[in-house]
Amino acid sequence: MKIAVLGGDGYCGWATALHLSRQGHSVAIVDNFLRRQWDRDLGVETLTPIRTLADRIEAWKRHTGNPIEVFEGDVTDYGFLSSMFREFQPEALVHFAEQRSAPYSMIDRQHAIFTQSNNVLGTLNVLFAIKELQPECHLVKLGTMGEYGTPNIDIEEGYITIEHNGRKDVLPYPKQAGSFYHLSKVHDSHNMLFACRVWGLRATDLNQGVVYGTVTGETALDDALINRFDYDEVFGTVLNRFCVQAAVGFPLTVYGKGGQTRGYLDIRDTVRCVELACLNPAAKGECRVFNQFTEQFSVLELAHMVQAAGRKLSLKVDIQHLPDPRVEAEQHYYNARHSKLADLGLQPHLLSESLLDSLMNIAVRYRERIDESLFLPRVNWREPVNRRQPAKEEMVLTGGVLEP
Amino acid sequence: MKIAVLGGDGYCGWATALHLSRQGHSVAIVDNFLRRQWDRDLGVETLTPIRTLADRIEAWKRHTGNPIEVFEGDVTDYGFLSSMFREFQPEALVHFAEQRSAPYSMIDRQHAIFTQSNNVLGTLNVLFAIKELQPECHLVKLGTMGEYGTPNIDIEEGYITIEHNGRKDVLPYPKQAGSFYHLSKVHDSHNMLFACRVWGLRATDLNQGVVYGTVTGETALDDALINRFDYDEVFGTVLNRFCVQAAVGFPLTVYGKGGQTRGYLDIRDTVRCVELACLNPAAKGECRVFNQFTEQFSVLELAHMVQAAGRKLSLKVDIQHLPDPRVEAEQHYYNARHSKLADLGLQPHLLSESLLDSLMNIAVRYRERIDESLFLPRVNWREPVNRRQPAKEEMVLTGGVLEP
Repeated sequence: MKIAVLGGDGYCGWATALHLSRQGHSVAIVDNFLRRQWDRDLGVETLTPIRTLADRIEAWKRHTGNPIEVFEGDVTDYGFLSSMFREFQPEALVHFAEQRSAPYSMIDRQHAIFTQSNNVLGTLNVLFAIKELQPECHLVKLGTMGEYGTPNIDIEEGYITIEHNGRKDVLPYPKQAGSFYHLSKVHDSHNMLFACRVWGLRATDLNQGVVYGTVTGETALDDALINRFDYDEVFGTVLNRFCVQAAVGFPLTVYGKGGQTRGYLDIRDTVRCVELACLNPAAKGECRVFNQFTEQFSVLELAHMVQAAGRKLSLKVDIQHLPDPRVEAEQHYYNARHSKLADLGLQPHLLSESLLDSLMNIAVRYRERIDESLFLPRVNWREPVNRRQPAKEEMVLTGGVLEP
Repeated sequence: MKIAVLGGDGYCGWATALHLSRQGHSVAIVDNFLRRQWDRDLGVETLTPIRTLADRIEAWKRHTGNPIEVFEGDVTDYGFLSSMFREFQPEALVHFAEQRSAPYSMIDRQHAIFTQSNNVLGTLNVLFAIKELQPECHLVKLGTMGEYGTPNIDIEEGYITIEHNGRKDVLPYPKQAGSFYHLSKVHDSHNMLFACRVWGLRATDLNQGVVYGTVTGETALDDALINRFDYDEVFGTVLNRFCVQAAVGFPLTVYGKGGQTRGYLDIRDTVRCVELACLNPAAKGECRVFNQFTEQFSVLELAHMVQAAGRKLSLKVDIQHLPDPRVEAEQHYYNARHSKLADLGLQPHLLSESLLDSLMNIAVRYRERIDESLFLPRVNWREPVNRRQPAKEEMVLTGGVLEP
């Protein structure tokens, strides 16, 4: 199958592109390298030293013989996007090409505007390009579990049957996103549903949980294929950050009480989920939603798991409760369905088994590259507009430690 | 109260600005005159000859002694918007400054992108400006009943109590918008709800039905104050268009079966609803939703009412069913609540009483200005991308008349 991976130089995108290539698909990576630019802008670096895309692709070809085509450009540029469609003619399009950090979107007005403009207008371009140039192409779009927020009822996969005043309908699951980033994905979901209904496009919206890990079967082949591993407060997902903190003896930074519960998955499951979606395309006119995660944890549960894993490596790991820089429930009901990808054949990698392999060991291996000044939250949901304090001062100002 | 009316030179905005000024509020109009530019771009003109904003404001001052301040600029320009906030310091901000036509948003990709970018990013700017510069300012934002679509259950005012698997929560009402324009309002609603929750802003989202009429107590004072009356297929709302068609003996153009049922209201109720929202502001942190319409009709019911009204004026009025250029249910359940504005004191003007006064008579009075070539739908939901046919040819191509 000819599969274009938009955002294929990023964290999930790179791992996915390699996995699909190894499965025998003809893969093209479409990327504008903005993700690397954001690191430079924020003065941060991935823990793992990643290579240029050209070096990565060359190493991949050397090891597997599989070429990966590269289209360098921006999906918000329709001229570029449509020329890629004409040249590559994708049968499936995996769309990771969005700004994907909640804190980044909350830095200030400009970052909020950029995030929604980049993500929403980019996805609109993708929808129009499919309709105009490749109407049978299956769109596999990365959404986020964060679109749902934390409702007091079970979270379903995209749609919910509602009985109301004696009548019944199946309607889009109500959305309560928690950042301008998460909201951009809510907007995308509504636009996609409309495009499928009106134009008969086929789409799969993968509402992904928090991804952890960095090693996949493919990236392990060569150091030049290594994937990024972000641990900074802006782009680092929580479990990756905890492992890095544990590796250098920095207390794990739990925001608030730590009862915030979310769905999580190993990056090895991310790549498999995308493959399963591609292999089992949505029907014409269908906009189906899969909740893409394998286990639910609270932040505090994760902290305790990392603490235990650290102990086995003789690391002393403390847990520190910081005031929550986000506006979110710190204790809440959370129960989200995630059976559709399992029904398609997903065999999950569970955290209990992979924590020491693919996480702590990476963190320990690259310990010298860790910059502790990147751990503490500087972006605050309540005061996003150019009133950020240096992280260390803020810790002192806010008292530092809160008991759960 | 100091009230800024964004989009105050437009159809609903102008009538609202005058009404609020007459009620003794200190009013500023904020507008970039894009609405007038779109008419020039599309080669259409309002039925009623409207004056420049400067002439309008001068006439208003002459008749009432009330000044209205004008800020010319674009809300997507944050520098402009924030300088308006600093100078005028609004206590309430009525936000009409969006591209508000569904067909316009469906013309092609560029118009879809423009609509979502203009509306969503403009409203993001408004939210940031309130938070930063005037955090107590009450945002009164025009949404649309079209955000809900046509679900098979009763439509509530913004939120719905859902019982699911033995648990219960009050959640945002699920959205199923029917055009890129309607979707832009869905995106706005989600962004507003978030801003209220996280920053403690106060907002009222007025999900307005289809507005008809042009005369209000204030615009009737002088010909120079006359409001716009759009009847073209892009910006003309259905009832206004039917009256103009009836005035020149053109068959009323009903799309499809005509069972499409929506909420409607007289523009005299629009201005009163906005006033009621301003007088009874939302609480801090509250994003409340009012469904702003007074009666429900199907398109075919409206056509029959116009037919009957025409008969009284000795006009022969035919009804023609055209293939529906939109993708929508032509027959469906529809029952939407609209009690919150009534609870605040709204006394509706019902269509049965105002049809002949404020609608047919205006259409007849300006009969010579009517351009019949603007009646027929050229924008098609299924083929929005630069494949538009001239309207007349399209009628022939599609066979013209469909029976209900």
